[in-house]
Amino acid sequence: MATELPDSEYDGRLERIRNQIADADADAGVWFGATSIEYLTGFDHIQTERPVVLAVTADRAEITVPRLEVERVESNPRIDTVFHYRDYPGGRPIAVAVEMLEGLGAERVAADADGAPGTMGYEGPPLSEHADIAVDDQSWVSRLRWEKSDAEVDLIRESAKWANLGHRYLAEETEPGAHPVTVSQRASMEASRAMLDTLGDQYVPRTRGSGPVHAGYITGEQTRLPHGHTANRRLEEGDVLVTGATANVDGYYSELERTMFVGEPTDEQAHYFELMLEAQTIAIDELGPGVPIADVDAAVDAYFEEQGVADLAQHHVGHNIGMGGHEPPYIDRGWDDHCESEYTSFDADDAVMRPGHVWTIEPGLYTEREGYRHSDTIAITDDGIEWLTYYPRDLESNVISIE
Amino acid sequence: MATELPDSEYDGRLERIRNQIADADADAGVWFGATSIEYLTGFDHIQTERPVVLAVTADRAEITVPRLEVERVESNPRIDTVFHYRDYPGGRPIAVAVEMLEGLGAERVAADADGAPGTMGYEGPPLSEHADIAVDDQSWVSRLRWEKSDAEVDLIRESAKWANLGHRYLAEETEPGAHPVTVSQRASMEASRAMLDTLGDQYVPRTRGSGPVHAGYITGEQTRLPHGHTANRRLEEGDVLVTGATANVDGYYSELERTMFVGEPTDEQAHYFELMLEAQTIAIDELGPGVPIADVDAAVDAYFEEQGVADLAQHHVGHNIGMGGHEPPYIDRGWDDHCESEYTSFDADDAVMRPGHVWTIEPGLYTEREGYRHSDTIAITDDGIEWLTYYPRDLESNVISIE
Repeated sequence: MATELPDSEYDGRLERIRNQIADADADAGVWFGATSIEYLTGFDHIQTERPVVLAVTADRAEITVPRLEVERVESNPRIDTVFHYRDYPGGRPIAVAVEMLEGLGAERVAADADGAPGTMGYEGPPLSEHADIAVDDQSWVSRLRWEKSDAEVDLIRESAKWANLGHRYLAEETEPGAHPVTVSQRASMEASRAMLDTLGDQYVPRTRGSGPVHAGYITGEQTRLPHGHTANRRLEEGDVLVTGATANVDGYYSELERTMFVGEPTDEQAHYFELMLEAQTIAIDELGPGVPIADVDAAVDAYFEEQGVADLAQHHVGHNIGMGGHEPPYIDRGWDDHCESEYTSFDADDAVMRPGHVWTIEPGLYTEREGYRHSDTIAITDDGIEWLTYYPRDLESNVISIE
Repeated sequence: MATELPDSEYDGRLERIRNQIADADADAGVWFGATSIEYLTGFDHIQTERPVVLAVTADRAEITVPRLEVERVESNPRIDTVFHYRDYPGGRPIAVAVEMLEGLGAERVAADADGAPGTMGYEGPPLSEHADIAVDDQSWVSRLRWEKSDAEVDLIRESAKWANLGHRYLAEETEPGAHPVTVSQRASMEASRAMLDTLGDQYVPRTRGSGPVHAGYITGEQTRLPHGHTANRRLEEGDVLVTGATANVDGYYSELERTMFVGEPTDEQAHYFELMLEAQTIAIDELGPGVPIADVDAAVDAYFEEQGVADLAQHHVGHNIGMGGHEPPYIDRGWDDHCESEYTSFDADDAVMRPGHVWTIEPGLYTEREGYRHSDTIAITDDGIEWLTYYPRDLESNVISIE
């Protein structure tokens, strides 16, 4: 049962980054992004208006944090020195970070940005305004995140287990007259508690006043909208549900979505469900190492065209998932052109699927009345694929029978 | 009972922005940020890798969205034309936005950024690379958001009511042996359901598979960390709790936090509680129109110095709250210098409190063992202040009595 990344994982990430720093002939790599800082060190923090700045050199890793993060980072085995400022803006965070960089003798740095992001109204000086520091761009970590290691896939697989339990509870609590919000919150509560009691000391706390599992749905006409909200209405016989479930396992996520029916679907509802299900199957059959990413989107589009429902599709087939709910690459028929564009550091090699990619496969159809979409989380392996989510996909399994 | 912003609010916002566009001698204002787009039009969307671009001219408002947002925006009374692209990146979102701007005859635009943010791995061309479009920076909306209108304060007041109910349920469910995560999730579920059933048709759906109210806490040694997580442990007699509760009312939030005790506190715990409570009272007594923002932080620091506990403070006194959980301005003793700095568009007038500012007041003390922090949400009025949160602050009211 994998619930936490091993130290060796971070050692390997830092080694790869240090090779890239050397190849770039830089004195240091610098990161302002919370996810990249967590990826390299395991120190996770909420990205707020208070900048956090990580600097990695050939032999050291130092960080600048606001006072309130000191106790959360000082025990980190991968960070040699922790600098801190009192708070934003009076503590002059960038000045403290510059002091850190000067102490490291970092005159030429490769950074993920030329200063902290504008989160929550942050404003401050660019790093490059300091005469002694030359700043080049790099997006090394975001690219490294594309190919997940076995240890990362293990966490996403564990996430899928608890998402599945949340989804099972969601289905069990669903009945006419129930409130979708309450069913969602109760299923999330019960699955979170089961995960906490099962994992015990192996559980890595990642939430604040909430639980690690989230399961819920949108209902009825809200399902017409891929990003619809949960309406304040009770469930009724005949409702279509578009569900979603995930669990946070040491900062990694899976994605499970199902189209379900409260009571027997109409012939029309069953028809669109089967078209959606076949499209998802076609996409999954396309997946594998070396497959051009854009081809998977094109295959689904060809099927929808053939069935005369292409105008009911509102989005591409899927995205990567891991530390982020949406991550590149994206299964979009324009992905290959995107890799060739001057606005990315990618090339043709980045336009194909690779072992370690973890995809959500979620083609959808949206009629005037309702939406139809499953989503499964599937990893690319050396010789094929691995399903990480496993809730049944067929129509019968997704009908809530009512007396 | 105010649960939704009136149309007149959006009309007023657009009018003020159109005056700024004219003053800037620009053909159009352009926004890529989801919160700014919602502020101006009422169209709320999840900021993902898919860009959304709003353009406002003297007499029109047009928007470019991904296909999956079309049905959510086309009925918006403030948006005259909706352009869409299929998806990212193949749909070439910026090319579609440029087509929109060219149709508006917008050759000189004032934008919140020179292209879409890098959310979820987005990469694409800057707006300014298009030969026919000159791009100036502006941060008009983020500055407008500082002074809330009466209608905005009404929503935050309504949020505080439901946060208070969630907090009441949280206290009622708290007892030795209970699991903090389950108590938090149950209180959130019950308060969300009460809010939904009370507001009925007046409830504006804002959540997806979850509820509008969130109440929860961190416990025991986790409270040492202002941004600590909820541990996988049962509550015990003697635990300190640092709670948090809020509710989403048409996209606006309040913040209620309390330091509570499971059973009677020790003398040491009561001592730090009273120091924290007095510091919060001192800060609140300082608040008012025309008060230098930095002075409030300095007053708390002076008290902590006098009491010999300044080294136990880890952050400044508070921040604004509204559409965002943290918003500028910030109650920080360096705020006045910040307003004068070259990295902001602010000046000395922005260093003082104004009617419509809505502040969280949350000075904290953090010992080796535990943390102590209340947070209340307080609006600045024309002649004083208004408390929006109202859960009792005194020690006795925050002790969970156990038999």
